[in-house]
Amino acid sequence: MSSTIAAPVSLDEKLAAAKRASIALATATTDRKDTALRAIADGVLAASAEIIAANELDLANGRENGLSSGLLDRLSLTPARLQGLADAVLQIVGLADPVGQAVRGSALPNGVHITQVRVPFGVVGAIYEARPNVTIDIAALAIKSGNAAVLRGGSAAIETNRVLVGVIQQALASTGLPADAVQTIDEFGRDGAAQLMKARGLVDVLIPRGSADLIRTVVTESTVPVIETGAGVVHVVLDESAREDWAVDIVRNAKVQRPSVCNAVETLLVHRSAADRLLPPVLAALTEAGVTIHADERSLPYAADASTTSVPATDEDWATEHMSLDIAVKVVDDLDEAIEHIRRYSTQHTESIITNDLANAERFLAEVDSAVVMVNASTRFTDGGEFGFGAEVGISTQKLHARGPMGLPELTSTKWIVRGSGQIRG
Amino acid sequence: MSSTIAAPVSLDEKLAAAKRASIALATATTDRKDTALRAIADGVLAASAEIIAANELDLANGRENGLSSGLLDRLSLTPARLQGLADAVLQIVGLADPVGQAVRGSALPNGVHITQVRVPFGVVGAIYEARPNVTIDIAALAIKSGNAAVLRGGSAAIETNRVLVGVIQQALASTGLPADAVQTIDEFGRDGAAQLMKARGLVDVLIPRGSADLIRTVVTESTVPVIETGAGVVHVVLDESAREDWAVDIVRNAKVQRPSVCNAVETLLVHRSAADRLLPPVLAALTEAGVTIHADERSLPYAADASTTSVPATDEDWATEHMSLDIAVKVVDDLDEAIEHIRRYSTQHTESIITNDLANAERFLAEVDSAVVMVNASTRFTDGGEFGFGAEVGISTQKLHARGPMGLPELTSTKWIVRGSGQIRG
Repeated sequence: MSSTIAAPVSLDEKLAAAKRASIALATATTDRKDTALRAIADGVLAASAEIIAANELDLANGRENGLSSGLLDRLSLTPARLQGLADAVLQIVGLADPVGQAVRGSALPNGVHITQVRVPFGVVGAIYEARPNVTIDIAALAIKSGNAAVLRGGSAAIETNRVLVGVIQQALASTGLPADAVQTIDEFGRDGAAQLMKARGLVDVLIPRGSADLIRTVVTESTVPVIETGAGVVHVVLDESAREDWAVDIVRNAKVQRPSVCNAVETLLVHRSAADRLLPPVLAALTEAGVTIHADERSLPYAADASTTSVPATDEDWATEHMSLDIAVKVVDDLDEAIEHIRRYSTQHTESIITNDLANAERFLAEVDSAVVMVNASTRFTDGGEFGFGAEVGISTQKLHARGPMGLPELTSTKWIVRGSGQIRG
Repeated sequence: MSSTIAAPVSLDEKLAAAKRASIALATATTDRKDTALRAIADGVLAASAEIIAANELDLANGRENGLSSGLLDRLSLTPARLQGLADAVLQIVGLADPVGQAVRGSALPNGVHITQVRVPFGVVGAIYEARPNVTIDIAALAIKSGNAAVLRGGSAAIETNRVLVGVIQQALASTGLPADAVQTIDEFGRDGAAQLMKARGLVDVLIPRGSADLIRTVVTESTVPVIETGAGVVHVVLDESAREDWAVDIVRNAKVQRPSVCNAVETLLVHRSAADRLLPPVLAALTEAGVTIHADERSLPYAADASTTSVPATDEDWATEHMSLDIAVKVVDDLDEAIEHIRRYSTQHTESIITNDLANAERFLAEVDSAVVMVNASTRFTDGGEFGFGAEVGISTQKLHARGPMGLPELTSTKWIVRGSGQIRG
């Protein structure tokens, strides 16, 4: 834990300090921001003993409070994980700085030049739970994009986050940037989170990370604009003309490669004319990988024939993000029924159709209204890294500002620069 | 008034119908949408007697309820204004359709092609007051950008809006588009507005138009994402090196050309070393144009010398959008004080500096965080038409999604189209 003892500061004072610090961050050069990021990476490694000691306090409290093993695992920092965090910060050093990029511009007929340029939001707020890696991650992304960050990391990780924020603040100060540019408000508990959500004017955008419940709370209670990185009830459709090898490979990859993430498939919709041909090999491949099939009435016989571990699908299954080796399977009459099902149950994250029918492919791409719509590819490709953005800012499931995988530019706003020579409007 | 009698429909049913209609709008061709817009323009002119009769009812109610003359004027539709509305719709026909535009794209190393394309939001909600022109305006912009629109136009214009929406719906139906794509919810009164603000999932974005109070209410109460088109407490700074002719021309233009709009200047900040040289001619020009000067202590003597109509400025003046021939004037010690004043009082709409000092110009452009920041140009240029966007969607004063003058593309979201040939993630 940090050895400096500061006078107690109110939440409002902290937010005002972050706003002030954001002015310096907004005009800091890329070189200076990168120097600060390198200092953070170094600091995380140099302070690893202190960080792990604080983390052990959090883990002990977590065990006492009956935290699930999944949460405890997410909360836990090891030397290897700290190395991973430091590496991730250095990777952000390598990304292009979005601040100052010209988005578009023109010369007006009267000789006035207008240019739209990227500028930082100002202060980015983050609300998350039991994920100390997010503290480093969001802070580094915010600094690179010229934003200050106010972090509410939750009570379960309070000791770890306090030390991590101390490391970040020391790194900022050592490079001449204001330490207040990254702050934790964990000490204010749930009240602090509630105040952060109402801090319109002091906080420019709020990013919730965590359970569907947490995200729903932030989205409905916040008066600060929110970027929603929501859940993925992701669909794969096997059309009548789907190639068998692609169907097997893509469904298996989309479900099995990393079942706990939002771009993993949750529901498989199979054209009834393709069921005889495709369901046996697809279900066999899933079974071999240990997947439990939640089968609707029409797919249940195939599941039984393939000796799968299967249960009858319930209505709830269609709306569930399992995040585990479970998949819901439904036989549909046609593409209309598939699209209608998706419209009803999808969280509008990612959907993919496996087909060789051009008209159906184009119809699927046009009519399915999700952040990412695919033909003949694994839903696991919905990812900032895979898309070539370099950084993992999250995947937006909202329609305003950013949709789908987000890169550093999505952490910026824009402003218009207008250069005249005395022009007035006629 | 419309002669058809429809069965009463609940607000939820209306929103659900708009959502359904939005699916057809989203995939409608530009040709079909343009045909509908031409039919609206024709319909407005053909129904002008009916529209004006309904408008007279609203005006009579307004007079009875003591509506201000300004509001009554805004509410009033004349044959000339209807012609103007029809012309504005035809102008939107001439704009490029943003739907389907590719924003960016690439081929991934594995052969997967990704393209980010513009898609409609879905359902756009609008909340406004006593402005029947907005009914036609928003409906036309929504249709062109492939969105359905749900309109809450306020009780003062209820009769006029009912007829206008009838005209729009007939035009939609006549071109094979769903009439439900544009709906009014005025019949549900204030409850309707409150429900609209909570209709997350059914309404994709909400645009408030009207008083600062109305916008504040929508921004703080809505769980639907909002695009804020806010007030303009706009500043012009006269730097030490400002050219006198530009100072006079730009300040006069920015204040006088159209004082009732959001890009008109409200506060003039004058470098103390420029006050002797610039304030006399600038104040004389403003006085000649009938402007009342709200002068701070240091500018008051200049105002008296120039025989202006002047009053001492109060603290309130700095935060006021007068929307009239009033301007607040303050002498500042230096650029720091000017920027600090702007940071404190600006609504982050538009600020302009008149200067011949390159370093000061660049500093102003970099450090002032407003939607539009200018050097040596009139603040009146902050306008979609002037920027070459063709349409007047509004001027966003928020940082998320859109900032500054908005064109049709700002009424769209995006989605990623991914085309593969069996690729899976390794």
